[in-house]
Amino acid sequence: MKENMNEKCAVVGIFGHEEASKLAYFSLHALQHRGQEAAGISSSDGKKLHTIKKRGLVMRVFDEAKLKTLSGSSAIGHTRYSTAGDDSILDAQPVFARYDLGEMAIVHNGNLTNAEEVRARLIKRGAIFQTFMDTENLIHLIAKSEETQLTPRILDAVKKIEGAFSLVFLSRTKMFAMRDRFGFRPLSLGRLPNGGYIVASETCAFDLVGAKFVRDVEPGELLIFKEGREPKSIKVFEPTPKHCIFEYVYFARPDSQVFGQSVYKTRKDMGKELAHVAPVEADIVIPVPDGGVPSAIGYSQESGIPYEMGIMRNHYIGRTFIEPTQEMRDLKVKMKLSPMTDIIKGKRVIVIDDSIVRGTTSRRIIRMLKEAGASEVHMRVSSPPTTDPCFYGVDTPSKENLIAANMTTEQICEYIEADSLAYLDEAALLRSVNAKEDKYCTACFTGKYIV
Amino acid sequence: MKENMNEKCAVVGIFGHEEASKLAYFSLHALQHRGQEAAGISSSDGKKLHTIKKRGLVMRVFDEAKLKTLSGSSAIGHTRYSTAGDDSILDAQPVFARYDLGEMAIVHNGNLTNAEEVRARLIKRGAIFQTFMDTENLIHLIAKSEETQLTPRILDAVKKIEGAFSLVFLSRTKMFAMRDRFGFRPLSLGRLPNGGYIVASETCAFDLVGAKFVRDVEPGELLIFKEGREPKSIKVFEPTPKHCIFEYVYFARPDSQVFGQSVYKTRKDMGKELAHVAPVEADIVIPVPDGGVPSAIGYSQESGIPYEMGIMRNHYIGRTFIEPTQEMRDLKVKMKLSPMTDIIKGKRVIVIDDSIVRGTTSRRIIRMLKEAGASEVHMRVSSPPTTDPCFYGVDTPSKENLIAANMTTEQICEYIEADSLAYLDEAALLRSVNAKEDKYCTACFTGKYIV
Amino acid sequence: MKENMNEKCAVVGIFGHEEASKLAYFSLHALQHRGQEAAGISSSDGKKLHTIKKRGLVMRVFDEAKLKTLSGSSAIGHTRYSTAGDDSILDAQPVFARYDLGEMAIVHNGNLTNAEEVRARLIKRGAIFQTFMDTENLIHLIAKSEETQLTPRILDAVKKIEGAFSLVFLSRTKMFAMRDRFGFRPLSLGRLPNGGYIVASETCAFDLVGAKFVRDVEPGELLIFKEGREPKSIKVFEPTPKHCIFEYVYFARPDSQVFGQSVYKTRKDMGKELAHVAPVEADIVIPVPDGGVPSAIGYSQESGIPYEMGIMRNHYIGRTFIEPTQEMRDLKVKMKLSPMTDIIKGKRVIVIDDSIVRGTTSRRIIRMLKEAGASEVHMRVSSPPTTDPCFYGVDTPSKENLIAANMTTEQICEYIEADSLAYLDEAALLRSVNAKEDKYCTACFTGKYIV
Amino acid sequence: MKENMNEKCAVVGIFGHEEASKLAYFSLHALQHRGQEAAGISSSDGKKLHTIKKRGLVMRVFDEAKLKTLSGSSAIGHTRYSTAGDDSILDAQPVFARYDLGEMAIVHNGNLTNAEEVRARLIKRGAIFQTFMDTENLIHLIAKSEETQLTPRILDAVKKIEGAFSLVFLSRTKMFAMRDRFGFRPLSLGRLPNGGYIVASETCAFDLVGAKFVRDVEPGELLIFKEGREPKSIKVFEPTPKHCIFEYVYFARPDSQVFGQSVYKTRKDMGKELAHVAPVEADIVIPVPDGGVPSAIGYSQESGIPYEMGIMRNHYIGRTFIEPTQEMRDLKVKMKLSPMTDIIKGKRVIVIDDSIVRGTTSRRIIRMLKEAGASEVHMRVSSPPTTDPCFYGVDTPSKENLIAANMTTEQICEYIEADSLAYLDEAALLRSVNAKEDKYCTACFTGKYIV
Repeated sequence: MKENMNEKCAVVGIFGHEEASKLAYFSLHALQHRGQEAAGISSSDGKKLHTIKKRGLVMRVFDEAKLKTLSGSSAIGHTRYSTAGDDSILDAQPVFARYDLGEMAIVHNGNLTNAEEVRARLIKRGAIFQTFMDTENLIHLIAKSEETQLTPRILDAVKKIEGAFSLVFLSRTKMFAMRDRFGFRPLSLGRLPNGGYIVASETCAFDLVGAKFVRDVEPGELLIFKEGREPKSIKVFEPTPKHCIFEYVYFARPDSQVFGQSVYKTRKDMGKELAHVAPVEADIVIPVPDGGVPSAIGYSQESGIPYEMGIMRNHYIGRTFIEPTQEMRDLKVKMKLSPMTDIIKGKRVIVIDDSIVRGTTSRRIIRMLKEAGASEVHMRVSSPPTTDPCFYGVDTPSKENLIAANMTTEQICEYIEADSLAYLDEAALLRSVNAKEDKYCTACFTGKYIV
Repeated sequence: MKENMNEKCAVVGIFGHEEASKLAYFSLHALQHRGQEAAGISSSDGKKLHTIKKRGLVMRVFDEAKLKTLSGSSAIGHTRYSTAGDDSILDAQPVFARYDLGEMAIVHNGNLTNAEEVRARLIKRGAIFQTFMDTENLIHLIAKSEETQLTPRILDAVKKIEGAFSLVFLSRTKMFAMRDRFGFRPLSLGRLPNGGYIVASETCAFDLVGAKFVRDVEPGELLIFKEGREPKSIKVFEPTPKHCIFEYVYFARPDSQVFGQSVYKTRKDMGKELAHVAPVEADIVIPVPDGGVPSAIGYSQESGIPYEMGIMRNHYIGRTFIEPTQEMRDLKVKMKLSPMTDIIKGKRVIVIDDSIVRGTTSRRIIRMLKEAGASEVHMRVSSPPTTDPCFYGVDTPSKENLIAANMTTEQICEYIEADSLAYLDEAALLRSVNAKEDKYCTACFTGKYIV
Repeated sequence: MKENMNEKCAVVGIFGHEEASKLAYFSLHALQHRGQEAAGISSSDGKKLHTIKKRGLVMRVFDEAKLKTLSGSSAIGHTRYSTAGDDSILDAQPVFARYDLGEMAIVHNGNLTNAEEVRARLIKRGAIFQTFMDTENLIHLIAKSEETQLTPRILDAVKKIEGAFSLVFLSRTKMFAMRDRFGFRPLSLGRLPNGGYIVASETCAFDLVGAKFVRDVEPGELLIFKEGREPKSIKVFEPTPKHCIFEYVYFARPDSQVFGQSVYKTRKDMGKELAHVAPVEADIVIPVPDGGVPSAIGYSQESGIPYEMGIMRNHYIGRTFIEPTQEMRDLKVKMKLSPMTDIIKGKRVIVIDDSIVRGTTSRRIIRMLKEAGASEVHMRVSSPPTTDPCFYGVDTPSKENLIAANMTTEQICEYIEADSLAYLDEAALLRSVNAKEDKYCTACFTGKYIV
Repeated sequence: MKENMNEKCAVVGIFGHEEASKLAYFSLHALQHRGQEAAGISSSDGKKLHTIKKRGLVMRVFDEAKLKTLSGSSAIGHTRYSTAGDDSILDAQPVFARYDLGEMAIVHNGNLTNAEEVRARLIKRGAIFQTFMDTENLIHLIAKSEETQLTPRILDAVKKIEGAFSLVFLSRTKMFAMRDRFGFRPLSLGRLPNGGYIVASETCAFDLVGAKFVRDVEPGELLIFKEGREPKSIKVFEPTPKHCIFEYVYFARPDSQVFGQSVYKTRKDMGKELAHVAPVEADIVIPVPDGGVPSAIGYSQESGIPYEMGIMRNHYIGRTFIEPTQEMRDLKVKMKLSPMTDIIKGKRVIVIDDSIVRGTTSRRIIRMLKEAGASEVHMRVSSPPTTDPCFYGVDTPSKENLIAANMTTEQICEYIEADSLAYLDEAALLRSVNAKEDKYCTACFTGKYIV
């Protein structure tokens, strides 16, 4: 249960399928966990781009009639997590523009670290910005490039931006997919059953539309899709991989392959490492669902302590604005999670979560387990203490709200009222992701920012 | 009843009232007849602009909570009539932008005749266009101007555009109102009870918020509102008035004053002129509601033929998607309008409408009256034949769909199945609007375009 | 403008048309002015009744898919005005029941004056009541009748009820229409173009579906519709007409015929009588729209004082929950009505309304006219002072809220701030409705209740 | 994943808490899994009952304002699973009635097997039925009882009905809870922190509102709640327990206690028994989520074969009306469930589900696992073959649609394309629910109906 760190987006691109926007729609549904605030699709019918974007879940934004207006054999899509509080939806994607070479639409997962400077420079040169998305920078850079063809302009543009970006561009006749040199955010290439192509933030989108995984788009690579030929690859930057390790810890769907590995298996390995690093005598191992499930299974398998679904997650969750009565404590957590009292009572419990961000939810869970009769509650976290905010496309609380930035593990243990608390250390985490070389970004645990 | 020519927009600006966005909201409600597709408001709290815009009627787009986020003592608003079929709402106003002087929002009623050329020039210089509104041109022109202050930049920008524009600009600390040199579309200035100011497309907005009419913004005038001083006027262009005469014929609310005259009274005078120009022996004069009401009253008073509400308008109109049965003919008109059979039966009826655009509705109305037993139906139209499309901010059918562009009055009379048909001629129309000089645009009747 | 007395319902029945529920739907739309709170239709396919009823306007409650489930060649429908504040919708109609003879649905316009006693007797005999509608009584009475056939049972039942009722019953194979002996509420019979029948509260429903008016269902008459034969008439009660005169004054649509007369013409005649009864020197006669329009035309024609649309009604009305600012007085009225200042200014104005119930709206209107510059405002009301509540199917304020029950005409005149005030007296009102005999209920003006 | 057998309802009653309806609301939310179609609450303020019921999830039906109108210190609530296709919502509960002793509301979980006869008898005696719910019978029986007090009447009524019923009645001053003599459906009693009481279908409702479990309402017991005294118990029938064993198999929430046992633990024990009864050599044990999770854990613990979350359940499920493309097979299942390819590939997989009803979903799941690379798929079902429909309150397909009623286990195995298939036999199932005596209804597996 993580209410505090959130993936900001998902992107998808479909090329060479006569129902491209429909495939984009189903792909976005599979990627819904990466953003629930707004959804959008742009398609090209070869002559003109069509765009629909709106607040809401993918399934609510689109219907049959709308998908029909998104005609053409190529389409790009986006789901968005957003903190913006108004209805202006200025900030939904795809970002669309007409410019001197025609029409273009862009979707973006990531965060540009030099966005402010680039924007300031562009504004000084007379550009206007109609949204608050750094993605808007890209369109300006492409439009203002002195190159005459689109591909060199895109190269021009991406060389001026820094930070994390998995991008898909759509023009009337081509589609482009690009990842930053660090490969912070995932982006994979798949082949559609009929010969077309898909790129998507996670491979779970492939499964739903019947596509086969081909390979990841490489860090620093630009892929160009054009009708009647194989995708062309350009190595724009020398790849220096720094994949976001939190994709494994929490963001990605467990049935996806990201950065070359199964997410589920990697999480399970984190649980196994955790069993070595932070063993404790106990009767049962339980996960905080759903994030902690694979690690808890791994911990159980390695430690031999039985795995139980000691906490249930309620599927009928929604926002209620009804105030609880005085007697109802921790209602917010209890409406989502509830303890299997019979399994918990009198037991020494190891509870596994993927991370602790603010600490308040962990405290409520532990209280709930104790009220259910647990004799001991040992919290084990399948990642190191989250001490630093992310600047590469993840919505993180500021440092003063990250409990691990402000307390020692002992203090946190006391705060969350656990009998013991242990984290997976960085070395063990890297072992579980098979990091032979230093190819992951672990800045949120270490503060060592790359860019 | 006019389904065929539509005013494209309304604008409003409030300056110097602590609940500026609330006043803008009520004003937009009063201006709802000029556009029902989308509504938007931008406010400034002195430091930052806030914008909300969305599809739907004013009352549905905003609620108390949203108006609260639109804080500050100045606000501009817009309602939009639009033919765009998708949900992208890219094309709602205010248009907002960040640029080198800060933040700006613009609302626009009208149509720029050189929009394509200006846009092409801007695009050649690297600009990107994210919407299909010509209003976007203005922001670019202001942003790219080489002047260093906002006022000179606005002057710079408006000198580069041609066509019809009643504009309101909002910056963090100022508000600007501007009308093109011809004064095609109306824009009036009012004073709020507490000392602040309002500008609005029609004076009916003033009444609702308790403002007093001061004067029209002059053709070619720029008004600058700044805290602590009277509005400053700059004569940007030499005024050469060419007011849209169709505002009198149909668009404006009858309780408004536009171009210095009461709309209701002007319409009544058209009816009086019509009685002189196209008399006919008959038993009763009836209007096509609501557009024909004032003219029919005028016609009746001048001719002495009794006025009757011979056709009723149903207030519970909405779109139905239910197919009528075979027996139900002309259902679309009948759900809106129904005849007072008792008044009609056996009578020679003069029916007054403001205009005939495609002719299909007129035919249905006349059939309805004949079915109700009218012995004769004489159609009288309080404007000349509509022969030419408008390029100054009105949504008109193309020339091949304008019945008067393709048929003689006799042919139209036969087509609509009337016993006689007569229009107000241009001279009489100009008399009824007191046009001493040639200060109206009558291009939709004459094809004589000004710009 | 009447916010204070409201017709409670409309009913419709269709028999012998394969798209019966669709005709019921369009008929209910035409009758929407008699109730906007809820709508419902029951149809019979010969074997089974189907019912859909819900809160909301007719157009919102039904769609194509729902109408399809309401299959069969007979259907009855209802629109409801309701003061109930909750979402239980227990009280929408048709009332449906299974009972010993099969299935039945009923719609009812009116009010049973002995409902409480009947209900108490039924309850004593073991009946349960699941709604708060007196219509439920009828089903019980029919179900508990000792007759073995439906027709005698209906006769049995209607003999036990008192008050106002225009009823339509639907069984699997028949339809029944019944009016109380006084004929309080209207109910008319029409013939469909294909040979089937329609009964409806007002004839305006006939026009929309292409039906021809045949005659009114008589007071005290039961009409029985069965396939393959003409409707059969049974005189259940000796008719003693006491038609609700307020149908003419305000409720009915002006394009309807009720109680054998055109509503529009009758209203106009009221205006003419008013001109005789309460003349006053003035410059213009204006109606409070839309209710006062026909009377004002009549007044003008009779007095020779010119008729003007001095007050405009805004079509974009809806509920706003936005609080007005301090400076906006009488916002509620002003959002609906606005004065034609140019017409009003400096004039002696006669303003015609159909009735004064509480007096607050009249006061706001007169203030509005004076603010617009009227030199004198003379209020003329086309009905006598409303002094007594209705018990026959109209929602009236209690006596202490009826201004005319508590003040003299002089006091009311002062309260509403008019320069003079006059009502149509009862005798003149009866003249204008051609009441040769005493066949109208005027209890709301006289307190002389019939039953 | 079970789309084929569905619990029909949940009930709750709150007595003695000043925010009774709010507690009912939260309780219904916890019971939402037992019915998602409609929700309703009736409260009593001592003088009058208040009822709101509507289509939709609990959280959508109620808001703060509505809960406030449901005032009083007692309340009963209901969530409903329904197959009815229309909007009539006649069939939502609570069922409310006025009758000779005042007002009453009832909620019911179960199914009356003699409903048709009782209804026929009542109808013969003149009763009318306004809904299609057998619950309506009860109100009639109470209303028509010759006893003079409510309690004896309730006793009278429940003696005339047969079948499954867990009921809660609300009168103005009392609340009653009653279970049939077999105790088919669960109903438990809890104590609120402030001294009031709660009865609910499942104990998971207690946890959310802070109540403590006291005991089950006994089969055949009537509990009477009255202010100022302890609940009074009346043994109406000699208890002959025949609890619905499917509550353990699938319906109840795993964190509930039903029929005296933890649901989670019981399911786990079923898995353990299954490991004994139907062992197979394999590499991993995976559940069909969420129903199969506890049994799969039990199977794994007993067999020593590792447990894995081999199938993921998507939380963003909703209905889509978008047609899949030709290439997308089994989309409906794939939008809900997806395989952990990495875990499955090359493995011999035991997949555990709680039951097989029609077989189509099982086939799709097994195909999906084989496509993901499973070398063998062995299906194990934690209950016996479902051969017979339920008449005690569960929505079951008819016998011809129950695959186990029409095929042998071998045939089913072939149909679902599994490498092997085995069910838990009845004896083992009874062992896992600790059935010392024959106190469970297993009719859906055996066809041995009790009543």
